[in-house]
Amino acid sequence: MTTTVAIQGQAASFHDIAARSYYGDGIKLVPCGTFSETFAALETGAAAHAVVAIENSLFGSINEVYDLLLKHKSWIDGEVYLRIEQCLLGLPGAEYDKIMEVYSHPIALAQCEQFLDQTLPHAKRFEHHDTGGASEDIKRWDDPEKAAIASRLAAETYDLEILAEKIESHKQNYTRFVVLNKERRVNAAPSANKTSLILGIDDQVKGFGDSPGSLYQALGTFAGQNINLTKLQSRPLIGKAWHYIFYADVDSGLWDPRLQTALAELKSQNCEATILGSYHSGR
Amino acid sequence: MTTTVAIQGQAASFHDIAARSYYGDGIKLVPCGTFSETFAALETGAAAHAVVAIENSLFGSINEVYDLLLKHKSWIDGEVYLRIEQCLLGLPGAEYDKIMEVYSHPIALAQCEQFLDQTLPHAKRFEHHDTGGASEDIKRWDDPEKAAIASRLAAETYDLEILAEKIESHKQNYTRFVVLNKERRVNAAPSANKTSLILGIDDQVKGFGDSPGSLYQALGTFAGQNINLTKLQSRPLIGKAWHYIFYADVDSGLWDPRLQTALAELKSQNCEATILGSYHSGR
Repeated sequence: MTTTVAIQGQAASFHDIAARSYYGDGIKLVPCGTFSETFAALETGAAAHAVVAIENSLFGSINEVYDLLLKHKSWIDGEVYLRIEQCLLGLPGAEYDKIMEVYSHPIALAQCEQFLDQTLPHAKRFEHHDTGGASEDIKRWDDPEKAAIASRLAAETYDLEILAEKIESHKQNYTRFVVLNKERRVNAAPSANKTSLILGIDDQVKGFGDSPGSLYQALGTFAGQNINLTKLQSRPLIGKAWHYIFYADVDSGLWDPRLQTALAELKSQNCEATILGSYHSGR
Repeated sequence: MTTTVAIQGQAASFHDIAARSYYGDGIKLVPCGTFSETFAALETGAAAHAVVAIENSLFGSINEVYDLLLKHKSWIDGEVYLRIEQCLLGLPGAEYDKIMEVYSHPIALAQCEQFLDQTLPHAKRFEHHDTGGASEDIKRWDDPEKAAIASRLAAETYDLEILAEKIESHKQNYTRFVVLNKERRVNAAPSANKTSLILGIDDQVKGFGDSPGSLYQALGTFAGQNINLTKLQSRPLIGKAWHYIFYADVDSGLWDPRLQTALAELKSQNCEATILGSYHSGR
């Protein structure tokens, strides 16, 4: 059976590249307009899996995805790190200095701001919800004065010419994607060496340092087991102003006795830890 | 001399309301199109102060503002909490059920999504960078089928009619604003009972739990002094993928000997703490 994978965007988007790098080329994409639709496709069974960007090394966490993870409690089954290299794509034969309009995802436009300011200062910029979709539009519009910012794969997929490559301002531009399943796999693979969880402690930050259930104490359960945090992200607790939940990634799998000890200690502190997934860390 | 205050947006925006609630009604606004321009107005001296939204109780931290605080190192002199109540504003005499277009800031549109879906499902929504500016446009366009979502003050300021009020989905909708000075006031007011700082520890999260300079150890310096954290926000360290800096708010002023002890301990841990400001906490 073909593996169906929901992504935000369409063929040749960076989500597509991330999905292929995890599942291989034989997948059937379920393109979605928004992150919310992507999670919904997983929930309704329209796709067996989903791949969603969760953080960029320059722009930080994608808050909407963190909030959707809490809402849907989908299971994180793996992760993919992708170096983001942006290209300027035009019609075959298009002349670089005649480009008057550039279309792309707002983050991609921001990532290439320096390039656009310096080399195409007169070109107007237009936002599109997807780099793959922007590339397809360029092909369809058939106007040599229009260009897209997208991946090298988008040039192949939509038969466009690469007018400039590696046009992103910062080269340390990586995006982390998580791979999701609808079903919670509490019996995670024994080889899992990374776990994502939500620490939902009532009054946790306010109570910091002076009561059981504080953030400091919660982090101490991991420190005590020599487990490292690779990420800590706060998000507001809806309906209770200035209270927070914390998303944490730790470098230990669910089968690791150290993590089991830490989780038991958290429980005794009245800290509610929701496991979002345990998986093999990506490169 | 009149107090000049730079804000993102214009008269009757929520930034304007926050600025007035802090400085009183006699201020001279310096309206700016973006947060980046607001910080620039402070830096060039176009305004003596600035008021910027930093967090909403539903949408979380405004990452752009955190990044601008790091870039400009402006001094936080105070804070304002504002309950956000949204109104639907139209021309005097406009009929509620004939509204076909609604203009507002994207966050304001999101805050009123339920209301719009249920009561004006056919109305098209348009984004504006400011609720005050959207209100002014409605007045200028003079079209009874167009409406803005903005504050009650915007109705008075631009002579519009309140067609519906308290239309935000969640009532626990508060925004925290910080009040900025260009000059760093290291001799903060003795009455200051809150301090904002950046913990910039190299390898801090990665080194968690096993080395000096870890986040856990850094937080321990505050816990040891019985100082509470009211906020902890991570942001990526640009140019070093998957490394972070942390913004922290603590409930202690710079003159507090406990905070001085904690800061000295942080220094001995090779944790670089940059003070962003010390001030009296807002309500």
